[in-house]
Amino acid sequence: MFSEAESDPILPKPRFKAQEARLRTALLKAQYELLRQADRSLLIVVAGIDGAGKGATINLLNEWMDPRHIRTLAYGDPTPDEAQRPPLWRYWNELPPKGRIGIVFGSWYVPLLMAAGRKHPKVARVEALADEVRRFEAQLAANGVQIVKLWYHLSREAQAERVERLSANPATAWQVAPVDRKVSRRFGRARAAAQMVLTQTGAAHAPWEVIPSADDPMRTACTAEAVLRALRRRAMPRVPHRYAPQVPRRRTIPDRLGKLDYDAQVDKDDYEAELEQLQARLALAARASAFGKRSLVLVFEGQDAAGKGGAIRRVTHALDARQFDITPISAPAQHELARPYLWRFWRRVPAHGRIAIFDRSWYGRVLVERVEKLVTPAEWRRAYGEINDFESQLAASGAIVLKFWLAVTADVQLERFHEREASPFKNFKITPDDWRNRRKWRAYAEAANEMLARTDTAAAPWHVIPANDKRHARLQVLRHIVAAMEKPD
Amino acid sequence: MFSEAESDPILPKPRFKAQEARLRTALLKAQYELLRQADRSLLIVVAGIDGAGKGATINLLNEWMDPRHIRTLAYGDPTPDEAQRPPLWRYWNELPPKGRIGIVFGSWYVPLLMAAGRKHPKVARVEALADEVRRFEAQLAANGVQIVKLWYHLSREAQAERVERLSANPATAWQVAPVDRKVSRRFGRARAAAQMVLTQTGAAHAPWEVIPSADDPMRTACTAEAVLRALRRRAMPRVPHRYAPQVPRRRTIPDRLGKLDYDAQVDKDDYEAELEQLQARLALAARASAFGKRSLVLVFEGQDAAGKGGAIRRVTHALDARQFDITPISAPAQHELARPYLWRFWRRVPAHGRIAIFDRSWYGRVLVERVEKLVTPAEWRRAYGEINDFESQLAASGAIVLKFWLAVTADVQLERFHEREASPFKNFKITPDDWRNRRKWRAYAEAANEMLARTDTAAAPWHVIPANDKRHARLQVLRHIVAAMEKPD
Repeated sequence: MFSEAESDPILPKPRFKAQEARLRTALLKAQYELLRQADRSLLIVVAGIDGAGKGATINLLNEWMDPRHIRTLAYGDPTPDEAQRPPLWRYWNELPPKGRIGIVFGSWYVPLLMAAGRKHPKVARVEALADEVRRFEAQLAANGVQIVKLWYHLSREAQAERVERLSANPATAWQVAPVDRKVSRRFGRARAAAQMVLTQTGAAHAPWEVIPSADDPMRTACTAEAVLRALRRRAMPRVPHRYAPQVPRRRTIPDRLGKLDYDAQVDKDDYEAELEQLQARLALAARASAFGKRSLVLVFEGQDAAGKGGAIRRVTHALDARQFDITPISAPAQHELARPYLWRFWRRVPAHGRIAIFDRSWYGRVLVERVEKLVTPAEWRRAYGEINDFESQLAASGAIVLKFWLAVTADVQLERFHEREASPFKNFKITPDDWRNRRKWRAYAEAANEMLARTDTAAAPWHVIPANDKRHARLQVLRHIVAAMEKPD
Repeated sequence: MFSEAESDPILPKPRFKAQEARLRTALLKAQYELLRQADRSLLIVVAGIDGAGKGATINLLNEWMDPRHIRTLAYGDPTPDEAQRPPLWRYWNELPPKGRIGIVFGSWYVPLLMAAGRKHPKVARVEALADEVRRFEAQLAANGVQIVKLWYHLSREAQAERVERLSANPATAWQVAPVDRKVSRRFGRARAAAQMVLTQTGAAHAPWEVIPSADDPMRTACTAEAVLRALRRRAMPRVPHRYAPQVPRRRTIPDRLGKLDYDAQVDKDDYEAELEQLQARLALAARASAFGKRSLVLVFEGQDAAGKGGAIRRVTHALDARQFDITPISAPAQHELARPYLWRFWRRVPAHGRIAIFDRSWYGRVLVERVEKLVTPAEWRRAYGEINDFESQLAASGAIVLKFWLAVTADVQLERFHEREASPFKNFKITPDDWRNRRKWRAYAEAANEMLARTDTAAAPWHVIPANDKRHARLQVLRHIVAAMEKPD
């Protein structure tokens, strides 16, 4: 894997000069083709042996291509803001739109390489981190983000020499971080770690390219060639099925919506007494110091007119306005369509101590987008796993994730539609879309039942609540939230 | 000012019921009209005496209007991220687009009200904070953000009674923060502070509305009426000139570009030696612990082909990729046009220890947008003050702001254009726009000279650098940056 790079090949300057014009022209042409097609974005992940000169890559690519369409995405230790979210949050947040290029420094490989580079690597930990990386890259590749990964490499001797040369000159000594000098002494361990990581994470849809780095012209030319190869790929490669996160397999989908007790109801006095108590408990739990290390993600789905808005207001009534955000979800905007569909939701992942409420959500992918055929069957089928993966990352980072399906029967929906139409201040809530969706009642119910079967996980459970009686539904929602908030970690 | 509210007026329930349908219908209609016209956004600032029940406003407005087009923007103590930027950064960041409504809790009035509410208020401090608020609101109002400010008020007795009632009931005691109980004991001081603040910050373009709050129906109806009045305003009011930040007045604009020494040059050996030294010093300064409390904002402007990109790369060569962001500026996108023009730049204000590099910048407003008549003369003239205000806020928050104009002569530009056209990997840098701009050389020079005269401030100085010789220009840029970075605070 590294034998070529460790032979420290050299590209003589005249030969480099002869190639330079061709490479620059070809890179630019390919970059503009990417911009014109805008059918995908390209992430160039930069990693490698310390001291291999990988930092020069940014300047190189920005000088050789049109820098207006390239973003350098460089990450160090997590900021306080980042530490409160899943580790991949910061990468999701800054995904470039289709047509553009991102150069990633300090990528999602840093924790994996560190774990693999320990004196006695913990195999299970390394495997878990590698698996997370594989799932992430598979999801990006399946959603229009092409990935190419560059590993800058050179021999132990060349590394030592390079570090020595830079350190000796006071004007360049700053380029050598203390860590470089140290790594030079333990080249072998870093090399073994790289071998493990590159083997475990190479894939046709996210290939590693080893760049010989001892010689500047050779490193430059190989970088350019690798990026060029990536840009020239006609189409995004298919992502093998085994990379996708697993989804519960079921022969038959149970009809959970059909089996609810829609007669459940609560009388007004009981409702008001319990509502007040639940709100008081929620208020306390949300202000408790323990919540400072958690966050709360609430998802509200359900048929039109099921009462999502009213239920949400009963929740927020107990909360300080500074603590929560309500995000109503409708069709994605242009700049959202230019990224993987989960991007806009990742950007709204709450910090610790905060509450994010979604009025409709990422489940649109397997509901409206499925039923209205806005996506292919392959896309919405894949989404179950992508969503489970997203939610399990949320849960792992300390979020309490609760999902509510408010369920009404068709006759009650009709009643509410008519009520809304008759009310001068509620008729905005009823549109031709609502009537159209209603005509597809069965298709939506089928999609909802399948969604419930495939995404009801321990990390992020679904609560399916009969909502023909609004009071009953609101209390149920609050009861689940309060129970989850009051449960010790 | 408060006499009506302190009489604690009551709206009997039957009369409220009679008004409710009319108010809700009118509010919705007005909200949709705002959405349809999309000629402005509306910020509703919510403030008032503690315990006046202003928190209920969010639920009210979200219930009475279409919540999909309303965002609640609630702020508490600054987060670590916020504390590293100017105080107004967080408000700028979340401005709603035209057509939408934002409800602001914990607004820019909090520091002002606290300063005014001290036992012995410092007059100068209060006046300075009020002035900052006035300039902010004037700038928003002049740039398509309508503002209405609601002050929730009630009598001392009603406040005490309300706090008492809520505290007595264990189910509602959580609604009364400890601060409410305290404020109830020092009603007089809070009232005097409010009087001072409302007087100093009321304006036709950002009016205060006092909402009597002792009685729930009255508070609800008055809130609805106030929002309705704001929504029904046909046009944004003119912002009086005296609110605009001051700009240096000059009878004549000096021809700074015409008076440069364009023959300045540096020979190759001297260049390389000094470049290396400057980069080493910059690298050290950027890694110094003192920089952890500062940030660096670099603006690059200049004629086409003046060498901005090359100069930027000589700077970034000395820096760790994780430490800087380069933002190339071109025409604003749709969602950027829906906000005040400085919005997209505010969003890229760096945290402490970080470096933001702008390849072209907010000065486009007084350069290309002026020359190409994309904005009115009133708009670009106003921009000088808005920009100075923006930059002085950056400087006050710890940013080192340096602005570079790289100046070439027309003949050298022509030479470089031809060079670019002839080069297979540089011809992307030359477009019909460049030739068109070149034909307007004088108009651009005039705009640049006026910009230099009006925005060269101590907080954010302009460095005008002859760039016919690229080596000379690059060294000059680095010298200025290094000098500023090495200067003790």
